[in-house]
Amino acid sequence: MLPPKENELITRVEPGTPMGNTMRRYWIPACLSSEIAERDCPPVRVKLLGEDLVAFRDSEGRIGLIDEFCPHRRVSLYFGRNEECGLRCVYHGWKYDVEGNCVDQLNEPPEHQFKHHIHITAYPTSEMGGIVWAYMGPPEKMPAPPKFAWTQVPQARRHVSKVIEECNWLQALEGGIDTSHAPILHRLLTDNSTRGGIKPSNPFVRGKAPNLVVDVTDYGYLYAGIRPLGDSDVHIRTYHFVMPFHQIRPSRSESGIPCDAGHIWVPMDDYNCMVYNWMYSTTDAPLTDEDRRERGIGNGPDFVDQTTFRSKRNRENNYLLDRRVQKTETFTGIDGVNAQDRAVQESMGRVVDRTREHLGPADRAVIQARRLLLQATRTVEAGGTPPGVEATYYLLHPAEAVAPTNTDWRTLLASRAPRTDVLQRA
Amino acid sequence: MLPPKENELITRVEPGTPMGNTMRRYWIPACLSSEIAERDCPPVRVKLLGEDLVAFRDSEGRIGLIDEFCPHRRVSLYFGRNEECGLRCVYHGWKYDVEGNCVDQLNEPPEHQFKHHIHITAYPTSEMGGIVWAYMGPPEKMPAPPKFAWTQVPQARRHVSKVIEECNWLQALEGGIDTSHAPILHRLLTDNSTRGGIKPSNPFVRGKAPNLVVDVTDYGYLYAGIRPLGDSDVHIRTYHFVMPFHQIRPSRSESGIPCDAGHIWVPMDDYNCMVYNWMYSTTDAPLTDEDRRERGIGNGPDFVDQTTFRSKRNRENNYLLDRRVQKTETFTGIDGVNAQDRAVQESMGRVVDRTREHLGPADRAVIQARRLLLQATRTVEAGGTPPGVEATYYLLHPAEAVAPTNTDWRTLLASRAPRTDVLQRA
Amino acid sequence: MLPPKENELITRVEPGTPMGNTMRRYWIPACLSSEIAERDCPPVRVKLLGEDLVAFRDSEGRIGLIDEFCPHRRVSLYFGRNEECGLRCVYHGWKYDVEGNCVDQLNEPPEHQFKHHIHITAYPTSEMGGIVWAYMGPPEKMPAPPKFAWTQVPQARRHVSKVIEECNWLQALEGGIDTSHAPILHRLLTDNSTRGGIKPSNPFVRGKAPNLVVDVTDYGYLYAGIRPLGDSDVHIRTYHFVMPFHQIRPSRSESGIPCDAGHIWVPMDDYNCMVYNWMYSTTDAPLTDEDRRERGIGNGPDFVDQTTFRSKRNRENNYLLDRRVQKTETFTGIDGVNAQDRAVQESMGRVVDRTREHLGPADRAVIQARRLLLQATRTVEAGGTPPGVEATYYLLHPAEAVAPTNTDWRTLLASRAPRTDVLQRA
Repeated sequence: MLPPKENELITRVEPGTPMGNTMRRYWIPACLSSEIAERDCPPVRVKLLGEDLVAFRDSEGRIGLIDEFCPHRRVSLYFGRNEECGLRCVYHGWKYDVEGNCVDQLNEPPEHQFKHHIHITAYPTSEMGGIVWAYMGPPEKMPAPPKFAWTQVPQARRHVSKVIEECNWLQALEGGIDTSHAPILHRLLTDNSTRGGIKPSNPFVRGKAPNLVVDVTDYGYLYAGIRPLGDSDVHIRTYHFVMPFHQIRPSRSESGIPCDAGHIWVPMDDYNCMVYNWMYSTTDAPLTDEDRRERGIGNGPDFVDQTTFRSKRNRENNYLLDRRVQKTETFTGIDGVNAQDRAVQESMGRVVDRTREHLGPADRAVIQARRLLLQATRTVEAGGTPPGVEATYYLLHPAEAVAPTNTDWRTLLASRAPRTDVLQRA
Repeated sequence: MLPPKENELITRVEPGTPMGNTMRRYWIPACLSSEIAERDCPPVRVKLLGEDLVAFRDSEGRIGLIDEFCPHRRVSLYFGRNEECGLRCVYHGWKYDVEGNCVDQLNEPPEHQFKHHIHITAYPTSEMGGIVWAYMGPPEKMPAPPKFAWTQVPQARRHVSKVIEECNWLQALEGGIDTSHAPILHRLLTDNSTRGGIKPSNPFVRGKAPNLVVDVTDYGYLYAGIRPLGDSDVHIRTYHFVMPFHQIRPSRSESGIPCDAGHIWVPMDDYNCMVYNWMYSTTDAPLTDEDRRERGIGNGPDFVDQTTFRSKRNRENNYLLDRRVQKTETFTGIDGVNAQDRAVQESMGRVVDRTREHLGPADRAVIQARRLLLQATRTVEAGGTPPGVEATYYLLHPAEAVAPTNTDWRTLLASRAPRTDVLQRA
Repeated sequence: MLPPKENELITRVEPGTPMGNTMRRYWIPACLSSEIAERDCPPVRVKLLGEDLVAFRDSEGRIGLIDEFCPHRRVSLYFGRNEECGLRCVYHGWKYDVEGNCVDQLNEPPEHQFKHHIHITAYPTSEMGGIVWAYMGPPEKMPAPPKFAWTQVPQARRHVSKVIEECNWLQALEGGIDTSHAPILHRLLTDNSTRGGIKPSNPFVRGKAPNLVVDVTDYGYLYAGIRPLGDSDVHIRTYHFVMPFHQIRPSRSESGIPCDAGHIWVPMDDYNCMVYNWMYSTTDAPLTDEDRRERGIGNGPDFVDQTTFRSKRNRENNYLLDRRVQKTETFTGIDGVNAQDRAVQESMGRVVDRTREHLGPADRAVIQARRLLLQATRTVEAGGTPPGVEATYYLLHPAEAVAPTNTDWRTLLASRAPRTDVLQRA
């Protein structure tokens, strides 16, 4: 139930907007490392906060993230040649290094060249955890790189994927930090089903509707859903919301390996976001090929075109909803846990009209995230530093437990600290 | 040759418009009964007068027609589960009965629930003649159900289909009440053709250009086209226009059974309408399977996708126009009488610019319909009841005849009254 | 680096714009003669300067180019019947001759007809060189027909094709008159490649970056690129720019026959242009079937759908860019010289933002064309005649040569005048 002005303020991220300016104070995922795996690889298009960019890896392994359009005649550098430490526009052969310097003008004789006057927008990057991160804010305010725990484990124990969600980033994020929907939307109707989802025998589903707890922290907040299981026990899940768009949750891989996992909802523009999905094994067990297919969760190559990163189940095909499956096997009839999320969140429209919603106590985490985000825009506009820019989230660990009703769950979960020995100090 | 303001006034039907408010005083076809045939069937999307709705049949056979979007977080109820007397949103499990009451909030513990404060828009419906009709106007002004003769005959003698026409409802309607185009646009070039259309030997085609007569009535008007056949005879066809969007015409089924037939042009929004096509045998003969395929008329499964109700011959494929057929067999080269109508009417653009047209005497029925429609908006704005709301059209019957030139055709046709014994009194 | 107002002024051509009014003073290609080859052929859609038209050839061979929409009820005459010296609307049978006179009203009895009051927009046409040309300006200012040399040679020695480019006409034209890009964008990486493009051993590529020379004339300008080849020689290519959108360049056919060639960039509307590609053998040798396939140049049936004239390599499929080919064989990885042009020019966006470009000396021809075009709009607005309307370009001939550095190239090239005996005087 946001007023129209606040709905605009909190959702819009394109150049010049307060929320866009706030986002620019953080490191932002730009692409997967695997998209520009090799030196002198083809450039890839990157859309961030309404800006069209291209990313490439140069002959010496440095990463460039520059304006998509050549400043000469505005041709797309996506068509460019990545060669000898620079990306060359194919139209007239102007060439740019990773710092945005124009280093050649193939169409002009030497006496006419003016390349030292030509620069192209170039953003600093940091490669970590299989992701190329960008910093698009004021240079003097660049924070330390985003050393999330999951970015520091060996590659064998980590997996990262991405998928476009065809709506504003905030309604996607709001789905992620809303634990109350999970055992409803993602419910299996029978333990016999082999489709992705949460079985009815799982205490997450068996538990009654949750009480939501939100503890605000210096990086965002910790939140928990506490569900009664009969009279004596409760089921507890705790998560972290790290500003401005990270979720950290307890999970298991497809093959059952205990994991921490999460999503990052990165605004491409006001109407689309790129969801990054990460997980890492919190034990010594490496992830398997099956884990990396992400079939149950609804990401990976069965669910997402690995060239365009568009979901194969999407708005145009009603997410391949099968009404028979909906009657007999799964709550939605749509395969893939995150495909289910995309279906409902995209169905709200490109930017949901929050003036017409009706929130209740189960939406406490959603409400608190909005407060933090709106406050952050005011902090940034006043010249301050928004929460989560300082990397206090380094060792954050989510947890899940069944415990007696009277347990002090914060103490219990604090005891389940991350195994810091699994981290690979950078 | 309408002024721009009147063209806007008469075509626009979305919420808040005078014509939209006028339409809301009538019963409006919302979907086919067959789309929600079973109890607890999947919900279907319905777009009416610019509003997004879903229709469903509940566990007890009652029909719900409610807002598409859950008031909690605005997720589409199209993805909902129809179960135990209500439609349940899959995101958080809120559930609505056919009257729009929220009857469950699965995400909230009992002590937090506030379902008695939550209602969703729900419109009254009436099922009649294979169609679910909706009333979207002020409750205190709801008229008696639309007992058109055709809705009262046994199902074996009636057929109803529907198809989207990709333009404003009014230019579709104007085509339907324009008898002057029929023997031109729908003409076959040879009696030997087996394609749908009107043969050259038919007096409808053999006759010369018609004189149009329009007799205004309390429900709309009766109109006739009178065509000289040589010196001594005339060919006469009479039709009815029932406000705000019904046509009733004389017809024959594909197998030749004498029928009354008609269209209803229902505005989905300002740019699309859903055309309902009905016919019923006016003799004891039941309709055949071939009749129900509607191949000549250009509706039915050969011509219309029965899931999306989109015409297979459409703007994108130039209606599969075959220039060779146009040279040798049919006037248009497009198969299917109503596909021909859609082709020309959609070719005018989504909302035709009536400031640039040039009407003549043959357009008398079109001109009169506009007058009635514009007058109806003024009547409704002044608090009155527009024509046709009171169901005086119960026994309307169209007719066709060849008669001596001096015949009093009104008397002749009145003598061809409907066989009221074929009606199944409700 | 145009100011925003000038970018608007120079690019916009739809009805009422200064540049549109300027264009209307010239003969404009409307369609290929082959599209309406036969008498009483089907009409074809033609979009010119934002106007929707249809072209047809009547029963006596006369060409009609008239408004697409029937003035009666605004139905598209694309669906019309071309019969007995006129195009008949299929809706009510109104019929128009090539001069736009309404000659029949099939839906009205003789005593009601008002056809003498009905006229439809009709533009004069001139058929020449395999193209139907239109004149859309004030009748009293119609210039002599466009007797370009290439339109006057026998058909066996000439070839013309066309293709839609999905961007504003001006950025397409600017690519054509920009000789500096050609040996860069169209470069082959190895003489062994059989793909279309310019081999590295060609002096056009071997030469260093060019000095551009632009000599303004009464029809537009002559321009030349002069490229040093070592110390003693230069490579020279001269072209003509004929106002408002013609290029004339030296070329060779696919099989190696010396040709003059060129493009015409015809604005369909502000966001699309139709590029006509012509060439003619400047020797006695007729063009071959292989020449007419235009495989290397990237036009013709392998590259362009001959029904819609849409490029098969286009924005939606990234022009079928092959990154392996880009590494090893061609500068772009895109097959077809003109497909390469379309790729880079369309990548600038529908109307490139010229306020954000950075031009240099190599863009001299581009800058000069803009000056002439902007000046022409002022001339027309002041009631004058813009350059190139008077057909002084009749015998224009481009040339290419390798010559000693100190050569007076203008004299040299003037000596290579066209063989006027190859022209077929009309």
